[in-house]
Amino acid sequence: MNLEIKRDLASSWFQTLQNAFCEDIVRIEKNKAKFISKNWKRSYKKDEGGGEYRILQNGNVFEKVGVNFSKVYGKFPKEFQKNIPGANKDPRFWASGISVVMHMKNPLIPAMHFNTRYINTTYGWFGGGMDVTPSKIDIKEKKKFHRTLKEMCDRHNKSFYKKYKNWCDDYFYLPHRKEPRGIGGIFFDYKRDNFEKDFKFVRDVGVTFQLIFNDIISKKIKKKWTAKEKETQYIKRGRYAEFNLLYDRGTKFGLQTGGNTDGILMSLPPLAKWK
Amino acid sequence: MNLEIKRDLASSWFQTLQNAFCEDIVRIEKNKAKFISKNWKRSYKKDEGGGEYRILQNGNVFEKVGVNFSKVYGKFPKEFQKNIPGANKDPRFWASGISVVMHMKNPLIPAMHFNTRYINTTYGWFGGGMDVTPSKIDIKEKKKFHRTLKEMCDRHNKSFYKKYKNWCDDYFYLPHRKEPRGIGGIFFDYKRDNFEKDFKFVRDVGVTFQLIFNDIISKKIKKKWTAKEKETQYIKRGRYAEFNLLYDRGTKFGLQTGGNTDGILMSLPPLAKWK
Repeated sequence: MNLEIKRDLASSWFQTLQNAFCEDIVRIEKNKAKFISKNWKRSYKKDEGGGEYRILQNGNVFEKVGVNFSKVYGKFPKEFQKNIPGANKDPRFWASGISVVMHMKNPLIPAMHFNTRYINTTYGWFGGGMDVTPSKIDIKEKKKFHRTLKEMCDRHNKSFYKKYKNWCDDYFYLPHRKEPRGIGGIFFDYKRDNFEKDFKFVRDVGVTFQLIFNDIISKKIKKKWTAKEKETQYIKRGRYAEFNLLYDRGTKFGLQTGGNTDGILMSLPPLAKWK
Repeated sequence: MNLEIKRDLASSWFQTLQNAFCEDIVRIEKNKAKFISKNWKRSYKKDEGGGEYRILQNGNVFEKVGVNFSKVYGKFPKEFQKNIPGANKDPRFWASGISVVMHMKNPLIPAMHFNTRYINTTYGWFGGGMDVTPSKIDIKEKKKFHRTLKEMCDRHNKSFYKKYKNWCDDYFYLPHRKEPRGIGGIFFDYKRDNFEKDFKFVRDVGVTFQLIFNDIISKKIKKKWTAKEKETQYIKRGRYAEFNLLYDRGTKFGLQTGGNTDGILMSLPPLAKWK
């Protein structure tokens, strides 16, 4: 398949997903809260693409949710080239992706994160995943979440779930706290077995996230919470901010390559506390 | 002068200062709030020193203030050796210091930060400084702060103020926001001209910080503030957390060398917001 077509397929899918997620979120908010949308360009001197980030704050259900789409291209700075597959001799890249972070008003509903991307250097690959961060673990919710992920992975390849679950556990870990960020999920990168199969998997990851967030929210949306549970959530969000600022590759990469700061740091919680 | 004596002089001074600061703070709180003190050790297997961090939260004046003392020794991990003066061939080090971060309840009073330290590898040097972070700049306060610093520096060497002010401006800067952290101050490192002179300067920096924080607080302690000003402070604190987690050398160094996480991250604000 022609490279241009692959790129169009991938980026169109990410945009479709952005719309679908936003529609669900506004529906969950009973149309009483709105997204604010912002378009940005990577460069104002030449065409290097850009993106659209959408953010909804202070809803009845979502305290802050960002749904980011981007399609960018250009050249990697020299110091990045050797760390990125296929960019050693040719610094040109093309990248498109979608990322979502949900920080919930009800502290019994976990924070949820999802991302998928398609990247081209002289190689082309998919990456992404999702993970869930409750402030207090709900065993039943955790089991169902992982069961849903396993079933989805198994539809594509019986080896995926274990591999991507472990990758997620390794990645979303705070060594200085000796704590995982949350209850895990799946995480994958440099996926370039076969475009059609990989893309099918990536689409399934997106649709499955949609299923999961709708399900998790609907189960708990009416549950009452206490001030103490809200405090615990604020502290957990402090950990979330620590992870994103200290360790997250996407955050570092974005800030160092002149990405859109507000878009990149959209993942930060609306309100965090440190004791 | 014998190295042991230098170390004792420096670390004793830092402890004296810790006590003096804490007494002032409790006095400012009219004895209605207390420090919680925690002693920690760098290692429980062998003697590698440790420290005492003291924290006071939810006072009438201080929302969160930490006053940290430490005296640690041991060996640098290999990957650090080449980045630290005098440690290239010999990984052993000794370090003692005091650090203070004040996050104020009244958003009209700036956050204030101070630190001084004495470090030995095969070299020995002092480092430290102070800087002030208002959520809204008060020109009069800024001018007086810098004038006090200049007068203090000039007592030691006419070239210090300009040099250390610029060092501070360069260091406390958030490139991804294109914003300085606050209104600056002074910052110095690798100072090893002459132990007696350097130590005298370092003591003066400490005493001057004590003078400054008492003065800044007393001027504004009774000023009324609005909810909007408090919100601006929360957003500014988000920037503070970004700086400390993304860029601060001390934070990175501490976390990567197995320092005390709670002590290191004591600098984080009690409550921060991101829009």
